[in-house]
Amino acid sequence: MDSYTHNSILENGHGHVLQVEKVLRMTSGVGENSYSHNSALQKIVISKVRPVLEGTVRALYIKENFPRYFSVADLGCSSGPNTLIVTYEMIDAIVGLCRETGHSPPELTVFLNDLPSNDFNTDFKLLPDFYAMLKKEKGNDVGPCFIAGMPGSFYGRLFPSQSLDFVHSSYSVHWLSKAYLEQFQNDFSLLLRSRADEIKLGGQMILTFIGRSIKDPTSRDCCLVWELLAKCLLDMAAEGLIEEADIDTFNLPYYNPFIEEVKTIVEKEGSFVINRLETFEVNLDANDNDENKNYVFDKFTCGQNVSHCIRAISESLLADHFGETIIDDLFERYAKRIGEHLSMEKTKNFNIVISMARK
Amino acid sequence: MDSYTHNSILENGHGHVLQVEKVLRMTSGVGENSYSHNSALQKIVISKVRPVLEGTVRALYIKENFPRYFSVADLGCSSGPNTLIVTYEMIDAIVGLCRETGHSPPELTVFLNDLPSNDFNTDFKLLPDFYAMLKKEKGNDVGPCFIAGMPGSFYGRLFPSQSLDFVHSSYSVHWLSKAYLEQFQNDFSLLLRSRADEIKLGGQMILTFIGRSIKDPTSRDCCLVWELLAKCLLDMAAEGLIEEADIDTFNLPYYNPFIEEVKTIVEKEGSFVINRLETFEVNLDANDNDENKNYVFDKFTCGQNVSHCIRAISESLLADHFGETIIDDLFERYAKRIGEHLSMEKTKNFNIVISMARK
Repeated sequence: MDSYTHNSILENGHGHVLQVEKVLRMTSGVGENSYSHNSALQKIVISKVRPVLEGTVRALYIKENFPRYFSVADLGCSSGPNTLIVTYEMIDAIVGLCRETGHSPPELTVFLNDLPSNDFNTDFKLLPDFYAMLKKEKGNDVGPCFIAGMPGSFYGRLFPSQSLDFVHSSYSVHWLSKAYLEQFQNDFSLLLRSRADEIKLGGQMILTFIGRSIKDPTSRDCCLVWELLAKCLLDMAAEGLIEEADIDTFNLPYYNPFIEEVKTIVEKEGSFVINRLETFEVNLDANDNDENKNYVFDKFTCGQNVSHCIRAISESLLADHFGETIIDDLFERYAKRIGEHLSMEKTKNFNIVISMARK
Repeated sequence: MDSYTHNSILENGHGHVLQVEKVLRMTSGVGENSYSHNSALQKIVISKVRPVLEGTVRALYIKENFPRYFSVADLGCSSGPNTLIVTYEMIDAIVGLCRETGHSPPELTVFLNDLPSNDFNTDFKLLPDFYAMLKKEKGNDVGPCFIAGMPGSFYGRLFPSQSLDFVHSSYSVHWLSKAYLEQFQNDFSLLLRSRADEIKLGGQMILTFIGRSIKDPTSRDCCLVWELLAKCLLDMAAEGLIEEADIDTFNLPYYNPFIEEVKTIVEKEGSFVINRLETFEVNLDANDNDENKNYVFDKFTCGQNVSHCIRAISESLLADHFGETIIDDLFERYAKRIGEHLSMEKTKNFNIVISMARK
């Protein structure tokens, strides 16, 4: 079992070709196990990137000389409260700038993108209250704002040519289109090439995703959460609850690149110039953050929190492969394991944020 | 009870202000009672309007001199197979024209619009197969096609200024934003004014909706389906299953205009010139149509079909007002009543189709 490293469910490339686009989705709805309810980690990440987002959007809007129309896209928006946090931040940056400089605000279109299986309904139902909140908070400082859903894979064209000013994506690009070796390089290049067609000259893109801090791709550092999940699956196989052969054929379409890999792919693809390429860490237990001064570690709670978070992002893939019946049991085991681990060692997610401009 | 005409649940204007935008939606999903499963009548209507749609789109695309980018919106798209039928027809018209004339096809954006409570998820899940079908059927004759969802009320702004070439809406404009007297005039004017901002000069709009064939607004001709529903509600009140007071306060936000009313509002608003203004009828029992040569009337089946259709469009409003528990019973009664009625008298829906250009 020791040989069962993260590779077994990550990029071994020997499994069946998972139809990722049909299966991968964050858990729908607003219930206890939903992504919407278990995305505190993603929220922390968004807050860390906020200064980069705000600075980039403001600089871009000035560079474009306060255009009357501004079009942005959020790739892999998922569903739930975080989606509209990013939208709010982009609107807030522009409204603030226009107010400071005495310009009237632009008409703003925001495209929320995710795979067609994403729970867009949950996002759309939040819109009436979101628009009302904007109007109440900003009054006439905010111009007409049109929020649309654009379903499809960002590993391919999504928007008309040269139609976007700004593209954003948080915690999505580490998900691949397939679980093959070298898939990240292909996928990331395709993402860049597709956006290169869609983003206006000089337009900007910011991507945030989970990376590796160590060059060696078999490094344990980024993949602990999946390694522990693989161990739980193996325990269940040993107890006869699932087939070990099913574990062999399960591949998670997920990759954490090293920062130099990202840089190399962007330079090789050639459509974008990198403005900023930075890394930052957040605690795997999202409650353990700078805002939460009274945080006290508790093995059970922490295990449950992380387990819920990982369940919300991986349940669709696991249920498709192993069947829905094992899911509750699997994540109970997982909560215990991850709680145990974190009681011994604080673990962080290593993140990469890249800001680049269309040449 | 005889005094309980259709007016009681249509435009009496004395009830509470229904929050239509939050409540009105065609029944979600793909189940037995879903709109998706019970929209045969709407499909027949779309097929009747197809020649107008095709002719208008082709003429517009020629007039705009075969632009490289073409943007269309379908207002009140609802969910289910009909949504993509209209999208297909628009694409088909342009692809056919480009093929005939040797032009390469444009990049095409289609915005599917409905209220935020609409079941967009069901529509979006159909997209991968729809794109695959397009590619298979048309090959390189079809250009990049981007289908987005734009949630919001069409009684207000939905899109950036002068961003649309063509707007379509089928069987939606008879739904009002509120159930007040003279609401149709206000709503329809607001729809025109909003689209006037969004449609490029010379751009086109086609609206199809249920109208009245007789000038008198209290005429029974258009409102039989609601009159019979009101009778079923009264029966249930007499049996103590619902409160009669609840019937008094229930208003259906629905209006069937007379053709001259439509013409007057368009001319008064002033942004559009009417190209075509026509009427046509379809049988209330959608199975009784020109395509279905072997149609034999059967009271039970016909009653069930019409009841399912009316349930799919009105269930959300009725359940919000009377509670979900009465719905099954109500529509069983309704099926019997409508079957009885149609066994005595063939009943048709009277439809108006208007094609107009942005001045």
